[in-house]
Amino acid sequence: MGNKHGSLENMERERLIPSSLEQTYGVHEDDGEVKACGCFCLGSIRKKFKGLWSNLRAVVVNSWEVGRSDPRKVVFSAKLGLALALISFLIFWKEPLPDISEHSVWAILTVVVVFEFSIGATFSKGLNRGLGTLSAGGLALAMAEFAHFCERFGAAWDEAIIIISIFTVGSLATFAKLYPTLKAYEYGFRVFTLTYCYIMASGYRTNEFMGTAVDRFLLIALGAGVGLLVNVGIYPIWAGEDLHNLVVKNFFNVANSLEGIINQYLNCVEYKRIPSKILNYQAYDDRLYTGYRSAVESTSQEDTLMGFAIWEPPHGRYKMYKYPWRNFVKVSGALRHCSFMVMALHGCILSEIQAPADRRRVFQDELQRVSTAGAKVLRELGNKVKKMEKLGSLNILDEVLKAAEDLQTKVDRKSYLLVDANSWEIGKPAIEFQDIQDISKTDDNDPFKYHGYHSFSEARLDLGTSRSPETTNLPFAGTNGFHKSLTREFSFKPERMVIQDEGDTYKSASVLSLVTFTSLLIEFVARLGNLVVAFEELSETAKFKAPPAEGRVEEEEVCGFWGRFWRFVKPRDRNDNLLA
Amino acid sequence: MGNKHGSLENMERERLIPSSLEQTYGVHEDDGEVKACGCFCLGSIRKKFKGLWSNLRAVVVNSWEVGRSDPRKVVFSAKLGLALALISFLIFWKEPLPDISEHSVWAILTVVVVFEFSIGATFSKGLNRGLGTLSAGGLALAMAEFAHFCERFGAAWDEAIIIISIFTVGSLATFAKLYPTLKAYEYGFRVFTLTYCYIMASGYRTNEFMGTAVDRFLLIALGAGVGLLVNVGIYPIWAGEDLHNLVVKNFFNVANSLEGIINQYLNCVEYKRIPSKILNYQAYDDRLYTGYRSAVESTSQEDTLMGFAIWEPPHGRYKMYKYPWRNFVKVSGALRHCSFMVMALHGCILSEIQAPADRRRVFQDELQRVSTAGAKVLRELGNKVKKMEKLGSLNILDEVLKAAEDLQTKVDRKSYLLVDANSWEIGKPAIEFQDIQDISKTDDNDPFKYHGYHSFSEARLDLGTSRSPETTNLPFAGTNGFHKSLTREFSFKPERMVIQDEGDTYKSASVLSLVTFTSLLIEFVARLGNLVVAFEELSETAKFKAPPAEGRVEEEEVCGFWGRFWRFVKPRDRNDNLLA
Repeated sequence: MGNKHGSLENMERERLIPSSLEQTYGVHEDDGEVKACGCFCLGSIRKKFKGLWSNLRAVVVNSWEVGRSDPRKVVFSAKLGLALALISFLIFWKEPLPDISEHSVWAILTVVVVFEFSIGATFSKGLNRGLGTLSAGGLALAMAEFAHFCERFGAAWDEAIIIISIFTVGSLATFAKLYPTLKAYEYGFRVFTLTYCYIMASGYRTNEFMGTAVDRFLLIALGAGVGLLVNVGIYPIWAGEDLHNLVVKNFFNVANSLEGIINQYLNCVEYKRIPSKILNYQAYDDRLYTGYRSAVESTSQEDTLMGFAIWEPPHGRYKMYKYPWRNFVKVSGALRHCSFMVMALHGCILSEIQAPADRRRVFQDELQRVSTAGAKVLRELGNKVKKMEKLGSLNILDEVLKAAEDLQTKVDRKSYLLVDANSWEIGKPAIEFQDIQDISKTDDNDPFKYHGYHSFSEARLDLGTSRSPETTNLPFAGTNGFHKSLTREFSFKPERMVIQDEGDTYKSASVLSLVTFTSLLIEFVARLGNLVVAFEELSETAKFKAPPAEGRVEEEEVCGFWGRFWRFVKPRDRNDNLLA
Repeated sequence: MGNKHGSLENMERERLIPSSLEQTYGVHEDDGEVKACGCFCLGSIRKKFKGLWSNLRAVVVNSWEVGRSDPRKVVFSAKLGLALALISFLIFWKEPLPDISEHSVWAILTVVVVFEFSIGATFSKGLNRGLGTLSAGGLALAMAEFAHFCERFGAAWDEAIIIISIFTVGSLATFAKLYPTLKAYEYGFRVFTLTYCYIMASGYRTNEFMGTAVDRFLLIALGAGVGLLVNVGIYPIWAGEDLHNLVVKNFFNVANSLEGIINQYLNCVEYKRIPSKILNYQAYDDRLYTGYRSAVESTSQEDTLMGFAIWEPPHGRYKMYKYPWRNFVKVSGALRHCSFMVMALHGCILSEIQAPADRRRVFQDELQRVSTAGAKVLRELGNKVKKMEKLGSLNILDEVLKAAEDLQTKVDRKSYLLVDANSWEIGKPAIEFQDIQDISKTDDNDPFKYHGYHSFSEARLDLGTSRSPETTNLPFAGTNGFHKSLTREFSFKPERMVIQDEGDTYKSASVLSLVTFTSLLIEFVARLGNLVVAFEELSETAKFKAPPAEGRVEEEEVCGFWGRFWRFVKPRDRNDNLLA
């Protein structure tokens, strides 16, 4: 556990010295003197310009990379610019309606406010805004009339009514915004408050609000129309498609994680030092970890995308009124339920208690088969979701179930390898267990030939921070006691009766941990069943197409010159590398 | 698994009939005829009014409940109303500066826009808005001057420059908004675009923009000032405190989940029917499930709160410049790492493979001790975080480590109970295992007296949807094959060599699943060590106070009349019931 301590030291260091400071000022180079006049020298100025230039270049390069990795961002930005440019022609409008130019600012503001990345978000926000504006406008006009009516009882009445109404409307709309079930309409309530206050304040001043209200409304409608037209008409970005791609990506990520974890486990590759970010479940660039973590962490992103997707009209491959986006999220949830088992498997690699390598090798073939078959199922389901195809006539789970069954049978037949009979209170069984160094060569056809029984592992049960009483008032010093295993911890307490050799307990624990790994893997396979059910429900409700007949060529035919041309120029599919 | 099928049927039903429809129209009551004239009858109108009235009453009751459960929402709404009412006095301002009343709308709009629930969010949004407005204003004025300058080459130049600049600024600001590292400033870029377009459009028209710019700016500053004053001055709501409470709540939630799960496991309480929402990892009201789920799912909420909290000035108990909010999130991450193990333990209850009750009873005391001690550690840490106290001189992990060690030792001594020797390829060990019905009575002092060896459980290995080939083209009918266990699945394939009695495999698997449960519990204890390290780092960096000397009375003294009065009237602490 020294590694963990080391990483803690590092964290400490990182916290105290911001990395930017480190780079800029080179705090580790002990220059001794600070040259106060240095910054005025020509050299220093040139250096600063150089720094500025390289910063600028970095920004451009990074922007280029962001644009290349997701060209939709560039397209969307250009679309917004175009819509703004189109609508800003209104500024120079002269005849026959000079009013248009006067109120053109409303159209321009509407474009900025309504234009959202995905079509669903645009519709949802647009509707919220429209409803909020209209209802607030109506209420404000009615209230203004009422205030005018009350003015006959004294000017103060008028003012009191306006102020009280602003207080009441502001409070109620804000409370409604915070009301849990109305959260989706938060933006609408915000617009409502804004519009109400605006009309009350400006209407009172000019007293000609009604006159310009229609002009303004028409210009807002024009702005919304141009915004929608450009956003939907040119390269529309659909939240539904994003959700679809996200779910597909999760399938491939979990499959990669699963395969990687089993491989690492079988090759006994241990983390030299477990990254503290993994222990604190923070984002960290580890192939095994990011795979399942992305699937686990995508909940809120999926919910947001679904919230927008349900606003989108039928389009492209989603030609259905009320498309069942909820089922996509459900499938992703079932996948998440599976990926928690992958996470638990990864936990076995992170654990201090490690099964001995020789025992792992005994079950190598079976574990490998389950892993390969399980990942294959995930990829196949991912591909089915991607292509929107139903399952074929063959049971997709056949292979993985067979593999899991074989693993279970092997575990059953060889479970004597998974326990340590040395410490049995009933005494060691009478069967002669030969100590053979390499039990991995166990020949299935001759079960009595090899069955090494002792663990050769050095793994110990080391249950985290066991701080010794001496160091407790210095918490960071306390973590120096991190190395202490339970053994040392308990050796402080002579009154504790040590029933038997503790070393044996650790051996036994490490051997038993292989049982845990196989059980978790089998539970993962069991959860695949639930995933298939969720997929089947999706494929039914979303009316996925029937799978192609077996043996049919999958390759889509590219028809004509334009098809070939498009294939050549189309932007890089962001999921291509994931599906490889 | 019949239950799962049942739930699927239910889901189908739910999907086809929206519940609101069901309530309103009573689709299940087969009235036979639809009375078309019915809706015009007096009775029907009265019914509708009654419905409206009961709806309204429900809204009021619910609002009351929302307000009672979190009075801050009510306070915040009233605060916003108050700030708006205060600033709207400007509308009626007459002398000495009549301009103020003309531009009062800017102050009012600023209040609405800047007023956010937490102080951190208010500061963060206010700064974004301020920077966005100022920089956009400066750029727009410069560009307008440039356009005017270019007008001398022809009127078209002016217009072209304005339109091109709007296109460029709109596109670039939008792209920057989508740039990953600038996501925190999204709102600022939005305001930038909005302001730039507004000034360009309205400034071009009136040509007197510079004249009113100062007035507007002053009024915006006034609005922001009043908003901030009211928001910070009256019952401020701090994002940092919310984050603190959230982390504390997670500790207690996970502790409750852990205890509940171990109790349920030991009492062999199985789910009669596993809720499909749990299988799809959706929100579901189950005490064990919500406990750890809330801790797992709070990531994005914590990140948001932290993003706001870092903007908040030192206040209340957080009297430190640059308070280490990041460490709170880190502690919560370490807790999450633990709660994944609690989740895996729950997975053992959800699993089809269930350990026989008699075997569970053998380890009952040890499991119970680890559970109680583990939950105690979590609650103690939660309380320490709540009270902002350092750890005491005693090692907080002592008890749980001892309990885990005892559990491990017992597993080691009795691991013969965790395997099924009947199917060993090396033959059954020669020790006489007596078949005794109730091995839970095993007397530790007389280990040879009882050691029942056979599993009496009916649990079977049932690995999800194994669809028979006949039913595959009807996916929902296909799930009828859900009941089929692996046994039946493989009985379709006579060519498969059945090596041994499959019933034994299931028995063995069910017995081994107890190993998994204990290993996961011990891994949970190991992860507690990491949690303590994260807590210690937090308690150091946030300068928590030293724990009170042992034996000191914990109860805070209530001083004087006002103290007692406050205690009486203060709103219900939302965490009180959690901490009970």
